[in-house]
Amino acid sequence: MRARTSSFTSGTATSPIGAFEDWCLSRIAGTLQGAQIRVQLWDGRGVALSERMPVATVVVRDRGTLVRLLYRTDLEFGEAYAAGRLDVQGDLVAALDSINRAVGFRPFQRRRARAGRIPLSSSRHNVHTHYDLGNAFYRLWLDEQMLYTCAYFETPDATLETAQRAKMDHVCRKLRLRPGEHVVEAGCGWGALALHMARYYGVTVRAFNISANQLEYARAHAQAQGLSDRVTFVDGDYRAIDERADAFVSVGMLEHVGRHNYTDLGAVIDRVIDPVHGRGLLHFIGRNAPLKLSAWIDRHVFPGAYPPSLGEVLPGVLESRWLSVTDVENLRLHYALTLKHWLARFEDQAGTVREMFDEAFVRTWRLYLAGSQAAFQCGDMQLFQVTFGRPLDSTQPWTRRDLYEAVDAAV
Amino acid sequence: MRARTSSFTSGTATSPIGAFEDWCLSRIAGTLQGAQIRVQLWDGRGVALSERMPVATVVVRDRGTLVRLLYRTDLEFGEAYAAGRLDVQGDLVAALDSINRAVGFRPFQRRRARAGRIPLSSSRHNVHTHYDLGNAFYRLWLDEQMLYTCAYFETPDATLETAQRAKMDHVCRKLRLRPGEHVVEAGCGWGALALHMARYYGVTVRAFNISANQLEYARAHAQAQGLSDRVTFVDGDYRAIDERADAFVSVGMLEHVGRHNYTDLGAVIDRVIDPVHGRGLLHFIGRNAPLKLSAWIDRHVFPGAYPPSLGEVLPGVLESRWLSVTDVENLRLHYALTLKHWLARFEDQAGTVREMFDEAFVRTWRLYLAGSQAAFQCGDMQLFQVTFGRPLDSTQPWTRRDLYEAVDAAV
Repeated sequence: MRARTSSFTSGTATSPIGAFEDWCLSRIAGTLQGAQIRVQLWDGRGVALSERMPVATVVVRDRGTLVRLLYRTDLEFGEAYAAGRLDVQGDLVAALDSINRAVGFRPFQRRRARAGRIPLSSSRHNVHTHYDLGNAFYRLWLDEQMLYTCAYFETPDATLETAQRAKMDHVCRKLRLRPGEHVVEAGCGWGALALHMARYYGVTVRAFNISANQLEYARAHAQAQGLSDRVTFVDGDYRAIDERADAFVSVGMLEHVGRHNYTDLGAVIDRVIDPVHGRGLLHFIGRNAPLKLSAWIDRHVFPGAYPPSLGEVLPGVLESRWLSVTDVENLRLHYALTLKHWLARFEDQAGTVREMFDEAFVRTWRLYLAGSQAAFQCGDMQLFQVTFGRPLDSTQPWTRRDLYEAVDAAV
Repeated sequence: MRARTSSFTSGTATSPIGAFEDWCLSRIAGTLQGAQIRVQLWDGRGVALSERMPVATVVVRDRGTLVRLLYRTDLEFGEAYAAGRLDVQGDLVAALDSINRAVGFRPFQRRRARAGRIPLSSSRHNVHTHYDLGNAFYRLWLDEQMLYTCAYFETPDATLETAQRAKMDHVCRKLRLRPGEHVVEAGCGWGALALHMARYYGVTVRAFNISANQLEYARAHAQAQGLSDRVTFVDGDYRAIDERADAFVSVGMLEHVGRHNYTDLGAVIDRVIDPVHGRGLLHFIGRNAPLKLSAWIDRHVFPGAYPPSLGEVLPGVLESRWLSVTDVENLRLHYALTLKHWLARFEDQAGTVREMFDEAFVRTWRLYLAGSQAAFQCGDMQLFQVTFGRPLDSTQPWTRRDLYEAVDAAV
């Protein structure tokens, strides 16, 4: 349990409202025109931004917040929400979804900073900031196997547990794993996929991670499941991988690699997978076009993360090594539903999270989960699964039909 | 029927062989080391390039050809083969496949020339050169519906006719066509897909083409099938399309668009498809990485064609318009099999083709079909189907399972 300094304030009326505040309000209303929300100031006055019934009321609790929303919108919205200087009364996900749709997407917005390569030391810092919040925290609201990536819902009413197992099977089937093969996994989280592959597909796995908490957890589970001889969890960055395997898999790591390291990742994949029948799968959060990540998420939730477009990923990671794309699937709506499950479980455990951290932490994570759900729902974010192989490999099945026929038989 | 000037020679021994010819032969042997072929000169002497049993003997019939093979390899091989100055005795496809594998792929080889935009006038010239050879010629060896693009074989033993119908259904299912919708097709060949969509999926279609022969054929078939009120064949380039549709489809046209027109194509798609539920599919020959097309194919078969990598296509055509990639499938082996069928039918009709044109034409097309089959077989060429949609559209099915379940029911 780590304590965080709380900047939470209860948020009360701070000052009388005049022409300046009205002007600020009208500027915000102009930018968000059409969003199905009402924006309200600390004295109760406000405006509806659409003629339709508002899904929520955004309450701005003081003048400083109102002003800062004009020039550091994204950062201020998140920080003020976390601190309680801004509140959303009503349906938070629907409000964020509606704001996204009103603002529209901004393709080819200029990206600033972070153009440099991400060195290993900052990779470690970035990963620790997010993934080392403590296994106890994530256990509160993830599924029983601790999968912190998009699930695969055969039908929308599947449980999260079922959908996470289905995701692992979907990945294994796309990789066409055969008993006795060797798999390298880059960025293995709490180890569920590595253990699943070994147990149900008869392969050996070396899984790499740089989060100490996750590695400790994964090793304990390998031990408990009697899989320690077939699954090795290695403390190392993807750049440290130097061994041959039949398949390479990475689920939810590419977002943390950094655009300028894509050719390095391609070189790693090229030296790992078998020169004739080697294949791999990259599962990652992406965008429809290059766009900078929210400044608030970058600063307060996922430092250094970048969800790339396919056009950014493919040249460096695969084309530079003459690897052949065999399949791309977009599971955007599956991630929206995964996040809906996480958010509901998180809310159920909000009291415990508050005790472990503080109210600002609870509100930061609530906004992050709700905002992510909204982003996948409205098409601002994508979830790509890219399957690839060596150009000479002609052993893949004739169609993709087997991915769907094998569902009931595999496990 | 158009006559072509024949440059075919019967190919006989032309000159005595000395140290210079031996040096040329050793240079060629060095470049192709490992290919499962024997290279033989006009007097019968030769070398095997691999220790394995040769699949064919490449016979070089004169000194000029031997020398030119050293410095304009690709062009000379094709031109000499067409003219009979070079022959391949044995399995032509296997020989070309083996040569491809021996040479290996050359990613990021410098591309020369043709960096400019392809203006409408040269698009017309390029298209006429290939597609206006006469419907009678193509009818000799294509399937009964005259589809001149990759088929989709549910199983490898399906007939070409069945596989071409399955391809059209696969495309229609990926587009999720609903009765009453309107579809725009860019580059419609002899019109089979447009008619299929209208007849079996209940949509109206406007299909664009700039090949006069193909348009005439397509219109006659629409008339004969009583579909003229629902399918319109328009004499126009993709740039002329200016209407709204629910879906945009293009099968085998992107190869002729030219890399520097991709953002123009993106703009056309963006103004065509519905702003909320619009979607589309691009079916095209591609590469694993940017690479110049064979100089021989560019000069003698497909002027102006360029098979792009996904990394070249996506930024201009889709990302520039914030369109969302929903599915990519690679049907490389299906194209190898399609070409195998075409080549077999072409050989059956070689006598008729010779009467329509001449021997050099027969040999040019034999080499083109065999070389293409080899290129898809060995992973030098890819066939991509890219499905895309508007970012806000959330009406797609939950998984791709329906693409495979619906197969028997659709038609």
